[in-house]
Amino acid sequence: MPTPGPGEVLVKVIATGVCHTDLHAANGDWPVKPTPPFIPGHEGTGIVAALGPGVVGLKEGDAVGVAWLHDACRQCEYCETGWETLCESQHMSGYTVNGSFAEYVIGAAPFVGRLPDNCDFAELAPILCAGVTTYKGIKETEARPGEWIAISGVGGLGHIAIQYAKAMGLHVVALDVTEEKLALARSLGAELAVNAQAPDTPARIVKETGGGAHGVLVTAVSVPAFAQALQMVRRKGTVTLTGLPPGAFPTPIFDVVLKRITIRGSIVGTRKDLAEAIEFAVEGKVRAHIHRAQLDDINEVFRDLKAGKVDGRMVMTL
Amino acid sequence: MPTPGPGEVLVKVIATGVCHTDLHAANGDWPVKPTPPFIPGHEGTGIVAALGPGVVGLKEGDAVGVAWLHDACRQCEYCETGWETLCESQHMSGYTVNGSFAEYVIGAAPFVGRLPDNCDFAELAPILCAGVTTYKGIKETEARPGEWIAISGVGGLGHIAIQYAKAMGLHVVALDVTEEKLALARSLGAELAVNAQAPDTPARIVKETGGGAHGVLVTAVSVPAFAQALQMVRRKGTVTLTGLPPGAFPTPIFDVVLKRITIRGSIVGTRKDLAEAIEFAVEGKVRAHIHRAQLDDINEVFRDLKAGKVDGRMVMTL
Amino acid sequence: MPTPGPGEVLVKVIATGVCHTDLHAANGDWPVKPTPPFIPGHEGTGIVAALGPGVVGLKEGDAVGVAWLHDACRQCEYCETGWETLCESQHMSGYTVNGSFAEYVIGAAPFVGRLPDNCDFAELAPILCAGVTTYKGIKETEARPGEWIAISGVGGLGHIAIQYAKAMGLHVVALDVTEEKLALARSLGAELAVNAQAPDTPARIVKETGGGAHGVLVTAVSVPAFAQALQMVRRKGTVTLTGLPPGAFPTPIFDVVLKRITIRGSIVGTRKDLAEAIEFAVEGKVRAHIHRAQLDDINEVFRDLKAGKVDGRMVMTL
Amino acid sequence: MPTPGPGEVLVKVIATGVCHTDLHAANGDWPVKPTPPFIPGHEGTGIVAALGPGVVGLKEGDAVGVAWLHDACRQCEYCETGWETLCESQHMSGYTVNGSFAEYVIGAAPFVGRLPDNCDFAELAPILCAGVTTYKGIKETEARPGEWIAISGVGGLGHIAIQYAKAMGLHVVALDVTEEKLALARSLGAELAVNAQAPDTPARIVKETGGGAHGVLVTAVSVPAFAQALQMVRRKGTVTLTGLPPGAFPTPIFDVVLKRITIRGSIVGTRKDLAEAIEFAVEGKVRAHIHRAQLDDINEVFRDLKAGKVDGRMVMTL
Repeated sequence: MPTPGPGEVLVKVIATGVCHTDLHAANGDWPVKPTPPFIPGHEGTGIVAALGPGVVGLKEGDAVGVAWLHDACRQCEYCETGWETLCESQHMSGYTVNGSFAEYVIGAAPFVGRLPDNCDFAELAPILCAGVTTYKGIKETEARPGEWIAISGVGGLGHIAIQYAKAMGLHVVALDVTEEKLALARSLGAELAVNAQAPDTPARIVKETGGGAHGVLVTAVSVPAFAQALQMVRRKGTVTLTGLPPGAFPTPIFDVVLKRITIRGSIVGTRKDLAEAIEFAVEGKVRAHIHRAQLDDINEVFRDLKAGKVDGRMVMTL
Repeated sequence: MPTPGPGEVLVKVIATGVCHTDLHAANGDWPVKPTPPFIPGHEGTGIVAALGPGVVGLKEGDAVGVAWLHDACRQCEYCETGWETLCESQHMSGYTVNGSFAEYVIGAAPFVGRLPDNCDFAELAPILCAGVTTYKGIKETEARPGEWIAISGVGGLGHIAIQYAKAMGLHVVALDVTEEKLALARSLGAELAVNAQAPDTPARIVKETGGGAHGVLVTAVSVPAFAQALQMVRRKGTVTLTGLPPGAFPTPIFDVVLKRITIRGSIVGTRKDLAEAIEFAVEGKVRAHIHRAQLDDINEVFRDLKAGKVDGRMVMTL
Repeated sequence: MPTPGPGEVLVKVIATGVCHTDLHAANGDWPVKPTPPFIPGHEGTGIVAALGPGVVGLKEGDAVGVAWLHDACRQCEYCETGWETLCESQHMSGYTVNGSFAEYVIGAAPFVGRLPDNCDFAELAPILCAGVTTYKGIKETEARPGEWIAISGVGGLGHIAIQYAKAMGLHVVALDVTEEKLALARSLGAELAVNAQAPDTPARIVKETGGGAHGVLVTAVSVPAFAQALQMVRRKGTVTLTGLPPGAFPTPIFDVVLKRITIRGSIVGTRKDLAEAIEFAVEGKVRAHIHRAQLDDINEVFRDLKAGKVDGRMVMTL
Repeated sequence: MPTPGPGEVLVKVIATGVCHTDLHAANGDWPVKPTPPFIPGHEGTGIVAALGPGVVGLKEGDAVGVAWLHDACRQCEYCETGWETLCESQHMSGYTVNGSFAEYVIGAAPFVGRLPDNCDFAELAPILCAGVTTYKGIKETEARPGEWIAISGVGGLGHIAIQYAKAMGLHVVALDVTEEKLALARSLGAELAVNAQAPDTPARIVKETGGGAHGVLVTAVSVPAFAQALQMVRRKGTVTLTGLPPGAFPTPIFDVVLKRITIRGSIVGTRKDLAEAIEFAVEGKVRAHIHRAQLDDINEVFRDLKAGKVDGRMVMTL
């Protein structure tokens, strides 16, 4: 059991979601590698079990969540302007510090998410990453209530994104490749759900939205998904990317310039974004579809995730 | 001599700048082709010589400019919200309607730029396209006074862009490949002017700007210029593209997402942008470096432009 | 029957809402007076009966609405930037040009609202003013989905405002002085509905919203309503005013400065705002509570309106 | 000599500006009173003399400034979004904690302003309050480069505001009541400087700015100055208030609504605003006009300030 340092809290983990990033981390897919051995996990929910020195605003027994952004410096230009997700001194749970695939995890007091007492810890766990990431990604498209957002992919992120978009007053078109996922999208409120592989899909979306989607959220960045996003975004619209696959995608200059398209990366969310994302979930407007497993099942969970067999979000409980 | 229709004016051309777009148009480089024979030219300045029926707010003798945006519908969602540059019914001078490489050109009364009496028509001509395009491109980076903008390319657009940026209170770093262009940039107020081909250029810019440029304006979009822009932009910064070369460029997902970079196309400017761009020039804060030629010299001018021999902006007078 | 001029349409009126502004106009309450005899009315809905010369995009039989903003110049700085409501050359229906309290009314083709075929003309009429005014007023508070808006007054404007706010993903607190109005507010989705005259109302709102409402829409500007708005708005929040009573209200400097409060006037809405406001109504997300009367009943309607007896919105049909 | 606590630094004061707020504090003019005895002063500049435990990013000998915002909680919704000036747990130098009218003052490490080595401590002192307050106030008008800002009052705040506005690319009209102040405004770059008491002043400003100032900064909020601001602001423009006199001012509803005017309070500036304001000064673009006095002269300085005899800013050195 780790000991919380100054400004830190010890969190007894009750549930923890499993994210593709955990796979990328375990595989060392990215330019900056974590130093093994380390404990993955950044969708942890639980109870404050002990306080380090100087903690303000938290007490033992409080329900909290541990997110990707373990902490940030709080005095650089990004931290000072509400963009701590860009802090160059940040630590990341399950990557540069130990994460939530454990009985106990250390959280930084000013950075843990605040949960209500008596919440469903397993259901809220995915909000800590999948939730806040899609919520922020939607905000970053700058689409306003009454406008259209296209959500590319109805998986672990996408099925949550649809719900945030609806709660934010947006019209939703969802894209995926199986009828099952499209049916799920419709049941979650998408006005339009179309097969991403049908050749006329972009043209159809442009037509049915009266000119294209004002925002596009690409939850699973792949070269075809990105290319398609540019074909269905409205003039003056924004395509937001949230995933972190390795590689590059080709961007067509002519369309981007003539249609004044904006392409924007988005990485998790700030503390304020997280608080807002949690609030939508606590109010029942957003609810992750979860499959429960035990922490000991981690290897099977990873295997299923890698094989694309996970529908919704896998959450391990302790 | 053409006859102005309803809402149109006949403009006696005094000067007309020559833009790379005129070359692209003449060569048929783009997906949508103009129908020859047509007259190029979209940086025309001159005097209103006759009014069509129903013209409001203009009279014979008024000094005006004819820009790329010949007209737009004024009742679509883009026109209604101050984004007529995105109107799908727009006409373009020197592309879908005849342009200013002629003694007379037709302008749409609500779309011509208003110039002061007794202005230097040749000096103001480049503002109609090179000026407004870079001015708008800088605005679209959302860089604020006191922040840094990197201007990639000190050619016909870039040398004007530097002046707009300085007049807007920005710090400027200019990039080009010859010492002559870099000296020009410095003389125009760039705090930093560096060789774009030196291997350590992005790192040096990041260092000297304390983290990267808040905005980057890529005046000549090429694959290397675009790739370099992404290396020197600050976290949360914006790279704006204004050129229209054919093709695509590879965008690295990891950096765009992790640094929350925005990539944005920008196409000429609206009527309001144009009025503002002209005002900066009329006040003497921005002055195009021009070389004067005669309209008859057009073939030589095109040849020199193609060969990259034009320094600043070529303006033909009548 | 008036004859439509260039760019105008003749509209056969089917229904027309009655607004407090019609009373102000009839009474000559404002600094700028209309010239009698004139026909009031600016919430008219009906069918295009004839086209003037040069009309584009409309045909006989189209369903349209005539709003307060009869037309604007389309070439001033406000018109060019999507703020035609501020055009200094605008004409106003039922004030500087004849309005919709008649069998036929003239509309300016680019400014009439577009309605779907087979719509309920009486139900949509109030959207032309009460709808777009409150919709714009809410936008102008800059409150985002998930945040709180306080709507002061649950009358002709307020009961519509609550519905727009809910459709835009906002939390709503409604204020009025009768239990009947508060019950109506709750039935329309207000999470909180409180008596505006209870002494602890501002404190209660601050408490229940966790710090105050992010936006406040004062639908009926009165000195007490305005003073109360400043007491319940959150730090950094915005109070938007939409009514036009004569007079001034005292603004406490200390609170406005220390809490960085924004106070903003808002006048009807632009063509784009109107199109959006209509879309929400057509989708059934916003529905005016109307009482139907005949055009001949106008004197009684005015009398009731003056006496504050009208609940929801009065609509006269032809 | 006070002892710095955790996260605090002891600053040896070299210079300290004197602000009207110090007078208000000493007089107990505001609703929330300081508890005497306390030491005023919130424009202190000096050298870090000692570090409390846990200070990051500062060392003994660093040049720093102590501003009004002594510290804030860094974990409320305002602190988390870059608006720590609105934190409800903030402490204020010279008001709720001891200020800089002393040989030593305690600063909170993450909140002190960073100054360059070998700076002119006396000249930079006024930037800590007068500078950042006007810089932020100008930003809050949202006026963009090339637009007009009216600065009402050319005193301790106003003469600095003019310089910030010019450095930000704005056109400036300055208002004051003596020819001496107006001459100073012109010498600092104001394109227009007019007597605030001349009856035709608002009309003249509207005319010369082509419709009114896009932003108005009222540096000394008084009822006449505020009323005048509303008469000279452009449609869609913003009037920003920065002073804190007791009382209220009457706001005319009709103009505010019909012209869509925004009235906004602004209080000092955030850490980021302060860093930016200092940078403009360090680059020599903004320079306070100061009169030097000794700390022992405080009673005379207060007396002169109260009598309105201070021209520019009074700075006491140690």
